[in-house]
Amino acid sequence: MLKRYLLAPGPTPVPPEALLAMAAPIIHHRTPEFSAIFRRVADRSRVLFGTEQPVMMLASTGTGGMEAAVTNTLCKGDRVIVVEGGKFGERWSEICEVYGLQVTRIEVEWGTAVDPAAVASALEQHADARAILMQGSETSTTVLHPVAEIGRLIKDSDCLLIVDGITSVGVVDMPMDRSCIDVLVTGSQKAIMLPPGLALVSLSEKAWKANERSDLPRYYFDLAKERKNLEKDTSAYTPAVSLITGLDAVYDVIEKSGGLPEVYRRHLILAEAARTGALAIGLRLLAPDSPSPAATGVWLPEGIDGGAFTKLVRNTFGVELAGGQGHLKGKIVRIGHIGYADTFDVVVALTVIEMALTKMGHRVTPGAGAGAAQEVLLRLYDGS
Amino acid sequence: MLKRYLLAPGPTPVPPEALLAMAAPIIHHRTPEFSAIFRRVADRSRVLFGTEQPVMMLASTGTGGMEAAVTNTLCKGDRVIVVEGGKFGERWSEICEVYGLQVTRIEVEWGTAVDPAAVASALEQHADARAILMQGSETSTTVLHPVAEIGRLIKDSDCLLIVDGITSVGVVDMPMDRSCIDVLVTGSQKAIMLPPGLALVSLSEKAWKANERSDLPRYYFDLAKERKNLEKDTSAYTPAVSLITGLDAVYDVIEKSGGLPEVYRRHLILAEAARTGALAIGLRLLAPDSPSPAATGVWLPEGIDGGAFTKLVRNTFGVELAGGQGHLKGKIVRIGHIGYADTFDVVVALTVIEMALTKMGHRVTPGAGAGAAQEVLLRLYDGS
Repeated sequence: MLKRYLLAPGPTPVPPEALLAMAAPIIHHRTPEFSAIFRRVADRSRVLFGTEQPVMMLASTGTGGMEAAVTNTLCKGDRVIVVEGGKFGERWSEICEVYGLQVTRIEVEWGTAVDPAAVASALEQHADARAILMQGSETSTTVLHPVAEIGRLIKDSDCLLIVDGITSVGVVDMPMDRSCIDVLVTGSQKAIMLPPGLALVSLSEKAWKANERSDLPRYYFDLAKERKNLEKDTSAYTPAVSLITGLDAVYDVIEKSGGLPEVYRRHLILAEAARTGALAIGLRLLAPDSPSPAATGVWLPEGIDGGAFTKLVRNTFGVELAGGQGHLKGKIVRIGHIGYADTFDVVVALTVIEMALTKMGHRVTPGAGAGAAQEVLLRLYDGS
Repeated sequence: MLKRYLLAPGPTPVPPEALLAMAAPIIHHRTPEFSAIFRRVADRSRVLFGTEQPVMMLASTGTGGMEAAVTNTLCKGDRVIVVEGGKFGERWSEICEVYGLQVTRIEVEWGTAVDPAAVASALEQHADARAILMQGSETSTTVLHPVAEIGRLIKDSDCLLIVDGITSVGVVDMPMDRSCIDVLVTGSQKAIMLPPGLALVSLSEKAWKANERSDLPRYYFDLAKERKNLEKDTSAYTPAVSLITGLDAVYDVIEKSGGLPEVYRRHLILAEAARTGALAIGLRLLAPDSPSPAATGVWLPEGIDGGAFTKLVRNTFGVELAGGQGHLKGKIVRIGHIGYADTFDVVVALTVIEMALTKMGHRVTPGAGAGAAQEVLLRLYDGS
């Protein structure tokens, strides 16, 4: 009997309140009943994004939202600057190239954050750049990028800041408007704790102006059309009914448990606890200097094959941790803290890492990791 | 956001396979479709009980099954011997007294198992005893009683051995027929990992003979009537349809994961790991000499109020452990291993005990408990 523990950086487990809401009979989407839910969820999503702008809900994963961000704001042949410090940075470049944009890459060592000075210098070299595309949190390297600092660089220019917030929205306090983000995207299977299939996208006023002149081909992902429909409490095409009712339930859960400040605090503490525990196990951190609260990446010890490690953890112990992507494949393991994760998920992750290392013949001090994490984790319960 | 962990000795969490089976639309109970399920579940329950006899399924909790065991096999004024080593031993006496039986108690110190010699001597003193009533595992004191040894004492006599197997059936290898048990009872919210509401009861040939002369009043819990209905793949009154379809799914889960031998092995290892961890925390065991694999009881340190402790564990950390019952109230804490429990449940239980003790000002070595448990827990994964 193998109990399953989903401790990867997305998809995250879905809270029971949302599972039950989504298990309710489907309601028709062109009804006053659903329109009321749609309106409420869209409004609550603006709070999540930290924006006065409408937040559009697309029936797609986050990658669809990323594509929409590009095709709705840029023009053929535009110069864009992409922060490439991981697999998802590369994804921005791939999308831009498919649509014939000229991509200038800022190559960032995987495991480190982009230096705002490097972005400033790229902007100087490429005064024609129409957009900077980056991640808020780069999931593949467990790095948090300094989005707001980069926002200040482009604030008074025509250049857009397009941010993949898939593992930063609802994870870190990075409000769209105050961070000068022009396009912000997230997906449902991360901090909003739902099954995959819903992307949220919002555009700043500056981005909406860019949208007017944007000439890239788009049909399903037409954000101006979605905005017009959103004003009528609906969407252009069939909305993902269950995911939207589920999102309403998730917002209830968040509200009842202290709201977004408490969500941000929880992610910070869980990630700090995981880092403290990993160091106590004797593992090196993948992103020691700018770790994301979304996930913690650690280097596996020499001689431990990462593929075999995550397979053992999954098949033998029933725990889903994430391995490495790209050139980190086989070398690291990542623990997710996003969404429906708590104290004991960190405890389970650190324990299974120790047990799997032991089983693979690597000596550890059993209990060192979760033991060291306890002091950090106890801070979650201060005041209670 | 408080994730909930149900780590008490019942009700246990329900595996997703059973939750989904029970969420399916209700089928009518007088149909060939349900009869086939009823038959299959009844047959699989005989394997669980380790008996050639039919196993009746009653829509009640285990206590209803205990009452049925008494009212269907005994007569007004009968002398019975009750092994009283905990709250559930006392329950046997209460039921017997309600029906006017003469109860001889064998008082057993809470936390210890009954000495078969004490039972033998009671049988000598009371040659008229019609039944011995006892627990397989006494949940309130986390003790395992030597049922098979007592079975040998009454094997060739007319005296019945009536066993509350609520936390031993499906937990320890104590087959009814080979252990000379005459009436065996269990409930759905324990080893068979279901919501409460279903009792299983089986009678030996000797018990069926006693049933013929039994004169205690009974209507709903009429086991002869149930046996007759069971032969026709149904029950006398409306069966608990969802619980029975859930039980079918649970038997599938057990079968797919190595069958009953693996279930028994898991319970033994989890309980040993919990004891090892508790000792490493510096806690004394409630039942050091005859611990049940169903649950592990530990004494809380001097000065720690058990009520406040379990409340803190529940309300602050989201974990449900059980406190003490009767005169153990406020002094102990119990960790369940029954049913849908695994390695990381033991890890979570030991960790939350450490964290709660720390929060209450008692010094522990963080990680000592779950750390010490790891070596034992790794034995679960030998051969994989």
